[in-house]
Amino acid sequence: MTKFTPPKRTLMGPGPSDVPQRILDAMAQPTIGHLDPAFQTLMEDIKGLLKYAFQTENALTFPLSAPGSAGMECAFVNLLEPGDKAIICRNGVFGGRMIENVERCGAIAVVVENDWGEPVDPEMVEDALKDHPDAKILAFVHAETSTGVLSDAETLCRLAREHDCLTIVDAVTSLGGNPLCVDDWGIDAIYSGSQKCLSCPPGLSPVSFSEHALEAIRNRSHKVQSWFLDLSLVMDYWDGEGGRTYHHTAPVNAMYGLHESLCILKEEGLENAWARHTAMHEKLRDGLEDMGLEYLVAPEYRLPQLNTVKIPVHVTDEAALRKRLLEEFNLEIGAGLGALAGKVWRIGLMGYSAKQENVDLCLNALRRILN
Amino acid sequence: MTKFTPPKRTLMGPGPSDVPQRILDAMAQPTIGHLDPAFQTLMEDIKGLLKYAFQTENALTFPLSAPGSAGMECAFVNLLEPGDKAIICRNGVFGGRMIENVERCGAIAVVVENDWGEPVDPEMVEDALKDHPDAKILAFVHAETSTGVLSDAETLCRLAREHDCLTIVDAVTSLGGNPLCVDDWGIDAIYSGSQKCLSCPPGLSPVSFSEHALEAIRNRSHKVQSWFLDLSLVMDYWDGEGGRTYHHTAPVNAMYGLHESLCILKEEGLENAWARHTAMHEKLRDGLEDMGLEYLVAPEYRLPQLNTVKIPVHVTDEAALRKRLLEEFNLEIGAGLGALAGKVWRIGLMGYSAKQENVDLCLNALRRILN
Repeated sequence: MTKFTPPKRTLMGPGPSDVPQRILDAMAQPTIGHLDPAFQTLMEDIKGLLKYAFQTENALTFPLSAPGSAGMECAFVNLLEPGDKAIICRNGVFGGRMIENVERCGAIAVVVENDWGEPVDPEMVEDALKDHPDAKILAFVHAETSTGVLSDAETLCRLAREHDCLTIVDAVTSLGGNPLCVDDWGIDAIYSGSQKCLSCPPGLSPVSFSEHALEAIRNRSHKVQSWFLDLSLVMDYWDGEGGRTYHHTAPVNAMYGLHESLCILKEEGLENAWARHTAMHEKLRDGLEDMGLEYLVAPEYRLPQLNTVKIPVHVTDEAALRKRLLEEFNLEIGAGLGALAGKVWRIGLMGYSAKQENVDLCLNALRRILN
Repeated sequence: MTKFTPPKRTLMGPGPSDVPQRILDAMAQPTIGHLDPAFQTLMEDIKGLLKYAFQTENALTFPLSAPGSAGMECAFVNLLEPGDKAIICRNGVFGGRMIENVERCGAIAVVVENDWGEPVDPEMVEDALKDHPDAKILAFVHAETSTGVLSDAETLCRLAREHDCLTIVDAVTSLGGNPLCVDDWGIDAIYSGSQKCLSCPPGLSPVSFSEHALEAIRNRSHKVQSWFLDLSLVMDYWDGEGGRTYHHTAPVNAMYGLHESLCILKEEGLENAWARHTAMHEKLRDGLEDMGLEYLVAPEYRLPQLNTVKIPVHVTDEAALRKRLLEEFNLEIGAGLGALAGKVWRIGLMGYSAKQENVDLCLNALRRILN
């Protein structure tokens, strides 16, 4: 059989981002048992570091053993029961996926629609909260990976609280890249992914649930429809009090990697990481605009870590250009997704990828292929 | 922050098993994008190698991006709809978990019970199939990890076919360790785990679905309750025909590891791997019996890769003995699970762990601590 040797890419798409050697080395350490006391120490350390990353004291803060889309599903299946009502904000692909999740729970989705490229409109959300006083959940995407838009999570969560609504926040792309304060903002359920601003390989979904969320879970009248994602079971595995109960086998080596990435984040400091993303974004933006490229998103809502630019009108085969970037420069940038397919490129500056040499590589490569 | 350095263990529990350096090295290679053409080549290679491992031509054969318990859930949520009836064989922990899955699908479980330590009884299954001609599914565990028992999957699948029933087979512990022929035996849905006889770190669940299973999925009248595990969506991601549709972000580096482990299996040859598990089991068994230890399971149903022995009556604190094995010998063996907790030890010889030096280490260590 042929050994697989991956090419050495520079990853500037919508994730995965470049993985630092420290994390790759951590993941290659010998596997130990998932019930080994040493692994249990690691689990506790990861929980502590994740609390820092999320800025929360929530006891139920841990990485799910599956990618971010399972994190999304975990939030919905645990908080919704058949017949419940959820207000879902859709301004891109991932809001749409939330609606799918609500419907598959047998719950009712009230959809607040904003254009792709626009943030979630707090006034429309407030109207929906007033029109639907029986809504149990308000859910939205903090950083929409499909459009490059940041929504005002703090304001949206405040509105939800004023209307006695729990919040589910998609922080797949924002964690580690944008200011995010779970406790100060009163977020009830949040999920992220390992492969964006944390710069791990994909496969894990850090999540956190507030005491209010746990109360809603404890008061459920139906079992959670997913056994694998049932927090009442997963909790006993991740909670150290009185010994852990076996639930599933955690992905041991992936946890080594996540631990290392969270150490890197702690060493740098959250605020410094946020500032670095912004600084690199500004450099990239200046270069892209010099080239005549235009952003899809207005400056005040732009994600620093995901730069969505309109494909110039003279480009007739954008996929061919991305192929050239990959083949000639080993550089990956992202295509448009859903309604934006063929219309935009998504240039990521996530985690370890948010550095000067990546900005330079990307600008040089784009200059070459666009001329 | 403190770097985590795992201890170097010898893993002879119920999984994870020892991971060879080749696999750890493969996983530490640079991460590439999950839509990179090079990754798509890897996905095709993995599918081909998994078909060999499962002995199947099923087009839908791939690794789910989550552990074996998600593989189990995937089989049930895709094949069952509310009101459907499933015959579930329970002779250990994992049959019980199947019942949980059936009930969470809103389906009805007809349970065929056998004692823990006994295989599934084909006569009882045949009676259940006769009594419930409306059953859609027969599900059972091929190799029960909680007891160390092998059931006769070939016969059980033949009975199911004769009664026009689809089969779901749990092969978490059997894949790569016991003879298993998905096509010859007519298995409709099968799932496994990466961390048993394939000797990868935990985190992936190889699955395979027959054309009959796919037909049942296509004819569903309800959407699959899990978005993450909905095969109609996952299929478009894993199927190369006409380009892949983005579904979730696959765990890229874990896939490097799985690919390498499947290459190792192909190099050795399936039959040789099966024979090695049996040969190592016989050596371990002889040593254990010399020490006066007794097996829980009758010789004809014993799993070579999971040796379940009764804890000697003079041992009053079995957990303390396992702790000594871990601390003095860096050796992990498994505790009893569920009804067998405190009554048995489970000694694994899975994948790379099934070798002479592990047998020797285990026998020497047990001799020392039991005297």
